[in-house]
Amino acid sequence: MNLEQISSTKIFGGWQQVYQHDAESLSCAMKFAVFLPPQAQHHKVPALIWLSGLTCTEQNFISKAGAQRVAAELGMAIIVPDTSPRGKNVPDEDAYDIGQGAGFYLNATQAPWFANFKMYDYICVELPPVLLEKFPLNGLFSISGHSMGGHGALSIYLKNPSNYRSCSAFAPIVAPAQVPWGQKVFTEYLGEDRALWAEYDAMQLIKSGAGSQTPILIDQGTADDFLQTQLRPELFEQACKEAGQPLELNMREGYDHSYYFIASYIEAHLRFHWNYLNK
Amino acid sequence: MNLEQISSTKIFGGWQQVYQHDAESLSCAMKFAVFLPPQAQHHKVPALIWLSGLTCTEQNFISKAGAQRVAAELGMAIIVPDTSPRGKNVPDEDAYDIGQGAGFYLNATQAPWFANFKMYDYICVELPPVLLEKFPLNGLFSISGHSMGGHGALSIYLKNPSNYRSCSAFAPIVAPAQVPWGQKVFTEYLGEDRALWAEYDAMQLIKSGAGSQTPILIDQGTADDFLQTQLRPELFEQACKEAGQPLELNMREGYDHSYYFIASYIEAHLRFHWNYLNK
Repeated sequence: MNLEQISSTKIFGGWQQVYQHDAESLSCAMKFAVFLPPQAQHHKVPALIWLSGLTCTEQNFISKAGAQRVAAELGMAIIVPDTSPRGKNVPDEDAYDIGQGAGFYLNATQAPWFANFKMYDYICVELPPVLLEKFPLNGLFSISGHSMGGHGALSIYLKNPSNYRSCSAFAPIVAPAQVPWGQKVFTEYLGEDRALWAEYDAMQLIKSGAGSQTPILIDQGTADDFLQTQLRPELFEQACKEAGQPLELNMREGYDHSYYFIASYIEAHLRFHWNYLNK
Repeated sequence: MNLEQISSTKIFGGWQQVYQHDAESLSCAMKFAVFLPPQAQHHKVPALIWLSGLTCTEQNFISKAGAQRVAAELGMAIIVPDTSPRGKNVPDEDAYDIGQGAGFYLNATQAPWFANFKMYDYICVELPPVLLEKFPLNGLFSISGHSMGGHGALSIYLKNPSNYRSCSAFAPIVAPAQVPWGQKVFTEYLGEDRALWAEYDAMQLIKSGAGSQTPILIDQGTADDFLQTQLRPELFEQACKEAGQPLELNMREGYDHSYYFIASYIEAHLRFHWNYLNK
């Protein structure tokens, strides 16, 4: 396996590392970050997959969220993929919400995107065996993410509930087919077939019977500029209620869409996931 | 007073804010960051001044160090100035270690620097009354910093021990007259007068009798690429020992010069300062 270590830096007694490899599903080189807690020197550990939001790379979460402190205490690895295929040969547009940095964790079917934009396959199919072969992981995963990455975490979890012990999200896009970000990018990546859109729409997946008896945890800031237009957690809440999917939706007074919000509540999310990863 | 709020973002129940004002001592507009803990809504609080390192702005510490969590718990404000004068009319060089981003917390005497590079006056004279007028601060300050900012914290503290309750540093430049970074920039900013250099050299200040009975706290990573060439904490340790200055120097195995190192030990520094700020 072609896996190059880009960096390895000690933090809270563990190691924050970044790797690069040739991602077959994306036809490009991809970076991802791995935090290994101190316990990983002695035994295999469970891992949280973190999916970042629009414009992010593998760097944002690892430098701004402050997650390593609690992960080091618990003994949890954290895997942070990049948010899209990258490179000169990968299609892009001069917009923050489509193309590179905006993979939306789906498999594109439309030109010019379909050759590279297969983030769903990358996260669900290609990356896990790479991680299990290279790192001291015990095979138990949970999944979380922010905004576009919250959409990724929810939709991937709901399509593959047996692959993850638990799922949470910060300020997620829960109903992409109902909001401008999702409508724009789904049309570009998936075309006009709304049945295909529903495959990557957390609210629609819940309505179609996906889910599990494990509660889903969502934190959402009330001062988030995207709350009313792009995020609309009430749509997901209503669908979960009707479907009997347990959901803990915390509306956080005065918090916005930034990593300051994530930093404030990441400890609660890590401990939520640990409760299921450590059973 | 001309003080413009650039941003105000909730984090850990407090507020991370950034302001801009016209800094007379620097003849330019300057940004600084203020973290106000939740307690500041009810009563005046003490503050830590944090001085950042080469290439940094007011943003690095507030987005990467993870300090707000503990500061919010304790009830401590954190003030983070920029590291130099800025702007089109401010001299600069195409180098990371001189000019903009590299103010070194001194008062330059040499052309072209002397009109703007008065960071010592800015931090010691101009900024404190601005802070006390605008924010709910009780007038008690401690001071800390990283690398070039560790040099700033140590030298400013040793020259003004009654202005601060305590001082700490991460990977500080402790003897600028002995190392390449300091020799280069002191020659540029201060000229050839070594007696003037000694005014901004923590080791020299200790040797000249500056100090206090309050211990100084320093954390230094053993895997720091600059340890042997630029930082040399053993020079400061020896001077403190000879002068009777209490010093806690922690050599941290395997840590480098990055904010991952700072994040790992910032809690210990905040609690150290709180011990003196809350007396």
